[in-house]
Amino acid sequence: MRLSAMNTAELQKMQAELTKEYEDYKKLGLSLNMSRGKPSKAQLDLSLPMLDIKQTTAADGTDARNYGVLDGLPEAKRFMAEFMSVPEDSVIVFGNSSLNIMYDTVMRAYVFGVLPGEKPWKDQGKIKFLCPVPGYDRHFGVTEAFGFELINVPMTPQGPDMDAVEKLVKDDPQVKGIWCVPKYSNPEGCVYSAATVRRMAAMPTAAADFRVFWDNAYCVHHLDMDDQAEIPDFLAECAAAGHPERPYIFGSTSKITFPGAGLAAFAAGPETIKYVKKLMSVQTIGHDKLNQLRHVAFFGDRAGLLRHMAKHADILRPKFQMVAETLQRELGDLGCADWTTPKGGYFMSFNTMPGLAKRVVAMCKEAGVELTGAGATYPYGKDPEDKNIRLAPSMPPVEDLKVAAELFCLCVKLASVEKLLAEKQA
Amino acid sequence: MRLSAMNTAELQKMQAELTKEYEDYKKLGLSLNMSRGKPSKAQLDLSLPMLDIKQTTAADGTDARNYGVLDGLPEAKRFMAEFMSVPEDSVIVFGNSSLNIMYDTVMRAYVFGVLPGEKPWKDQGKIKFLCPVPGYDRHFGVTEAFGFELINVPMTPQGPDMDAVEKLVKDDPQVKGIWCVPKYSNPEGCVYSAATVRRMAAMPTAAADFRVFWDNAYCVHHLDMDDQAEIPDFLAECAAAGHPERPYIFGSTSKITFPGAGLAAFAAGPETIKYVKKLMSVQTIGHDKLNQLRHVAFFGDRAGLLRHMAKHADILRPKFQMVAETLQRELGDLGCADWTTPKGGYFMSFNTMPGLAKRVVAMCKEAGVELTGAGATYPYGKDPEDKNIRLAPSMPPVEDLKVAAELFCLCVKLASVEKLLAEKQA
Repeated sequence: MRLSAMNTAELQKMQAELTKEYEDYKKLGLSLNMSRGKPSKAQLDLSLPMLDIKQTTAADGTDARNYGVLDGLPEAKRFMAEFMSVPEDSVIVFGNSSLNIMYDTVMRAYVFGVLPGEKPWKDQGKIKFLCPVPGYDRHFGVTEAFGFELINVPMTPQGPDMDAVEKLVKDDPQVKGIWCVPKYSNPEGCVYSAATVRRMAAMPTAAADFRVFWDNAYCVHHLDMDDQAEIPDFLAECAAAGHPERPYIFGSTSKITFPGAGLAAFAAGPETIKYVKKLMSVQTIGHDKLNQLRHVAFFGDRAGLLRHMAKHADILRPKFQMVAETLQRELGDLGCADWTTPKGGYFMSFNTMPGLAKRVVAMCKEAGVELTGAGATYPYGKDPEDKNIRLAPSMPPVEDLKVAAELFCLCVKLASVEKLLAEKQA
Repeated sequence: MRLSAMNTAELQKMQAELTKEYEDYKKLGLSLNMSRGKPSKAQLDLSLPMLDIKQTTAADGTDARNYGVLDGLPEAKRFMAEFMSVPEDSVIVFGNSSLNIMYDTVMRAYVFGVLPGEKPWKDQGKIKFLCPVPGYDRHFGVTEAFGFELINVPMTPQGPDMDAVEKLVKDDPQVKGIWCVPKYSNPEGCVYSAATVRRMAAMPTAAADFRVFWDNAYCVHHLDMDDQAEIPDFLAECAAAGHPERPYIFGSTSKITFPGAGLAAFAAGPETIKYVKKLMSVQTIGHDKLNQLRHVAFFGDRAGLLRHMAKHADILRPKFQMVAETLQRELGDLGCADWTTPKGGYFMSFNTMPGLAKRVVAMCKEAGVELTGAGATYPYGKDPEDKNIRLAPSMPPVEDLKVAAELFCLCVKLASVEKLLAEKQA
């Protein structure tokens, strides 16, 4: 029965029962964490054999222990290119953090401009940046740090609302970029439709130095290897549409091997790659090539990578299923929430009734279950409707997840009933 | 006999002999490289056992494979602090490149200011930076990339000419920083005197946001462990002088373990450390903690580190001796050059007669010996007297080094004789 169809007496009875249940939970002294998208220990163990690899010489004879090779060993570029489905010569292999690449990419545009001869963003007044919401807090944080004005763009099941995006970029030269997680987006697990990808590549922009920050963080992170989402090749689509330098593409093995010790890479158009290498050559002599060799030797090629991802999927799938089933069982009939059931990635997106996200997160915390802070999925941490909550089922064991998900549902129900009662009394 | 005391006939005879010798060298088809300060294979092999370390858990139980720990694992901070002779809480452990830390430190001052509330350098007009010369090309390159005006300050045997430095910083608020390599400097191998270090810490500066970029790259890189240079603790000296936030201190294990896969670290005053951590938290989730554990387990502590450095010294010492002896034997009596014989570091600094450095480097190259480009030791690559050449004896085997040094001396002699003859004919 939908909560909204209940009368005051029914709601009060439910409130009393839920409150008692909630108090019982609090007595359990739980300490569970569903806040961040961290791989679990079992997932990290999958890559332990990589540490047995002690190769120090690259295929071309380069001593990987010594200085040099700014953009990555050839075999590492080849591997990362296969992984990211882009040509080898459009890739630069970096260190362990794609976030760091994104930050430096914004920094370069800000300090030096996006290409030789282009005016630095710092000299162009107020810079505006499009942020599909809900989205990834660390993305928003980078552009906030540089003082940009962050503009919310609603997500749809096909990706960002392209009507809104096209309108915003068409007339305003201050709009310089957009954050995108095109496959299994954070937090919704949304897969951009082919039409969305093509419109993003082709749309006219008032700013010649407009760039799409394409964080393909979950490109091989399927929950079921027999049901893999695919999206068009964004680099190729941009080139075909006459915007070869529009895409800034990011990827990493952080959630494939080790989050602290993976490989990250950047892909872009030919002029951009040339320019970034030139600017980088002042910043560093090169990244960790021993770790590049470890990764290449461990995976071999894309097929080896996908075999490895199947093992991750086997660990993650039951966790996502547990949360999805619990949500459906506990909340499916009540009409007080909606949520996504992604086919990949690390998150589920959950919407309460407006105005309840903070309350639910606080109630969960009080009973020992930590969630991502309400508001985190919006720029400046401000969810205008206070309804979105990111669920991150990857880290806890499935039995803990069951408890956490049940408590979460209880809190959603209780907060919803309280809200409806307050409205009836108002 | 000094070349300057020779008459024309003597010089012509010498020119003829040297030219013949030079032509003979060219026929050898040499391909030797003394251009960069790279460790040799034998040195890299010293750290190979580090790759056997497969520890994944930190002393406090942290899974080093996963995300997190922005400023380095506690044991890594302790080790890097011991290595850099600074307190543990003044250290942040970064990735594999101290150059990258320096670049990012300049970038932060430029974009955000040196501390909360300080005006970013980008908003303060023309920024000037002091560059002790001869110095390190990559240092100069960073500040050149940000468009600063680089001001040459002469080096003395005690470090930068402090009279000149004090004068430049006292009245001009546009002077925001200075590059220093305080121990075994690049390229002279100069060790700053205690007085230089204390004056650098205490001097009044017109700019409140003046900073000393203290690249202690060679702090344990002695050529003879029984003759170790020591310098005062710069962090403590600055604090004692009332300038606790003046020092930006950099160090790395690049020339201790692996240049491509070492640890780099940053040390600074308490407000700076707090501020940098805050800005960094937007840029990355953390650096490679598995590599941190490898380093800590491999060395244990500072004593273990110094035992390891003794092995490096045993490999490097004969190379530096070979070059020093060759220079002395071939050029010692001719009065046409001077050079340094450092007790540590990776370089020797060599001065030809004015106007000959480019010519000598080109002659060496033509005969198959690559040296660091003439001018590289000066900002903008412009040595005003065209006389300084950096010699980097670390990489080639000692037998190659013998040939390279002899050819080098030959080129210096020939270029000098040619110059003196031209002067006599003028």
